[in-house]
Amino acid sequence: MSYKNALHRIVIALGGNALGNNPIEQQEKVAIASKALVNLISQGNEIVISHGNGPQVGMINLAFEEASKTNEKVVPIELPECTAMSQGYIGYHLQKAIKKELFLQGMPWHVASVVTQVEVSKEDEAFKNPRKPIGSYYTKEEADKLMQENKDLVIKEDAGRGYRRMVPSPKPVDIVEKESIVNMLDNEFIVIACGGGGIPVIKEQSGDYVGTPAVIDKDYASAKLAETVDADYLFILTAVDRVSINWGKPNQQDIDTMSVEEAERYCEEGHFAPGSMLPKVRAAIEFVKSGTGRKAVIASLENAHLVMDGKSGTIITSN
Amino acid sequence: MSYKNALHRIVIALGGNALGNNPIEQQEKVAIASKALVNLISQGNEIVISHGNGPQVGMINLAFEEASKTNEKVVPIELPECTAMSQGYIGYHLQKAIKKELFLQGMPWHVASVVTQVEVSKEDEAFKNPRKPIGSYYTKEEADKLMQENKDLVIKEDAGRGYRRMVPSPKPVDIVEKESIVNMLDNEFIVIACGGGGIPVIKEQSGDYVGTPAVIDKDYASAKLAETVDADYLFILTAVDRVSINWGKPNQQDIDTMSVEEAERYCEEGHFAPGSMLPKVRAAIEFVKSGTGRKAVIASLENAHLVMDGKSGTIITSN
Repeated sequence: MSYKNALHRIVIALGGNALGNNPIEQQEKVAIASKALVNLISQGNEIVISHGNGPQVGMINLAFEEASKTNEKVVPIELPECTAMSQGYIGYHLQKAIKKELFLQGMPWHVASVVTQVEVSKEDEAFKNPRKPIGSYYTKEEADKLMQENKDLVIKEDAGRGYRRMVPSPKPVDIVEKESIVNMLDNEFIVIACGGGGIPVIKEQSGDYVGTPAVIDKDYASAKLAETVDADYLFILTAVDRVSINWGKPNQQDIDTMSVEEAERYCEEGHFAPGSMLPKVRAAIEFVKSGTGRKAVIASLENAHLVMDGKSGTIITSN
Repeated sequence: MSYKNALHRIVIALGGNALGNNPIEQQEKVAIASKALVNLISQGNEIVISHGNGPQVGMINLAFEEASKTNEKVVPIELPECTAMSQGYIGYHLQKAIKKELFLQGMPWHVASVVTQVEVSKEDEAFKNPRKPIGSYYTKEEADKLMQENKDLVIKEDAGRGYRRMVPSPKPVDIVEKESIVNMLDNEFIVIACGGGGIPVIKEQSGDYVGTPAVIDKDYASAKLAETVDADYLFILTAVDRVSINWGKPNQQDIDTMSVEEAERYCEEGHFAPGSMLPKVRAAIEFVKSGTGRKAVIASLENAHLVMDGKSGTIITSN
């Protein structure tokens, strides 16, 4: 079985829940994720990995903000630089763990993380309405205090789980390092790219890319990555085995396959939570609609290897 | 002029002085560095870039340490993870600035940073004697206080400039992501790799790479990178135009070329400051001795484009 004759090219989007909240937890969780990822390779597929960075970028941002209050040698660091740091931090653990798993399974492939900028448009409506939660949860009192201290911060209630900082979440327009990523893939390398949705940059007329304090949804960035590398499948891995409609109600129904048309209808009917399942389904729809024969999968990390046999996951197809 | 027919393959090691101490300074300094780097490309060369991270990894390490004292949501982060973060942070700014410069000069090449682990040996003598300075300068009083607070810290006087944290600086044995780096290079991509000397990892018999709290000298890592990618030249860029013997004395002599034999003699005679020029000259010697026809250059960033004409820099050759 050669990587060149891979059955499918799959972009895999790992959720933040696959990463953990500190370096020790992250190494443990990433080791589990790597088994699932390498399983997909041993089934004959070629993989590209992207990942979320919600808790991590929040922790990095918070560390510099807090330390700058008590130590003049530290300055606060803006979100694009924090995302860049999170790509190095998570990419390192991922490539180390995948390399180990490849070694254990006697597989000769190589893996590397590419620091990735993702272009967004300055006209994107998201800049007018910051609503992507990042970092830690706060109480209402903590939130009010932080917003008083820093007028640029927007902290809002997040899906009943507490208060979090909200930043704009513009849509990805282009992947700046796409040629490097495609080249590595075409030469049989496993690539980790677009970490945390990518470092959000705006292209100026001068040819300059300027970082902007925002977070690109990792599922949309992964859909753009999948489109860019001409993937056959986009796998969005999360904590549940399948997408459900009427979730949590007596008539809850887990879905094994749905067409784009059905998925769009379910979105409109409000079956999916904003900031949680909704962006995953919308990103899946976007990728499937981007070209003929493209399929998207929403599944759990643990059961990702059962998807191709139809035993787990929700597959979204064009019809 | 095609990149495939490049005159020379050059690994360029950028010093910490080319990077600045905070994100704003770093973007300004990296813009200047990028002009020098792209100049070397327009002279017909193919380039690979590595960089230091002394002040940056120190700041990252310090931020997490300080913030963890006042905020339970932040934990201290170990050096390997801090180095990984610095690779993302510096790599992002470098690739953004180089891309802009390529665009301005109408050059079609692409650039990307690869998160790089560098293998070191657990038997390395350096682990018994930590002496690589990282991070901020302290007064003696601050140093004593910090060492009392954390018994694992070693803080020593650094070349008359104040007190700094010292960590082991083992020699690089292998570059873990070498295949990915060579592949990108061979396919005409500009690669940024081995940032901060690489993330130091020790290979266990289980096939596992384990991060170790150390810092690999970026000049030695760059020499290993140059050897690994079969470079023709290793350029070590620093703040001075040329290497000098009898530096700062009335009989100071700036050197335009020296053989490995001469360079070794000067090292033994104590002409070069440990932790400053000495590791640069030793790394240069190591690369030149690693294969036929290999040359090393120690020069300033500003005048790097004059090196090939013999107008600036010190060239170290095998004889």
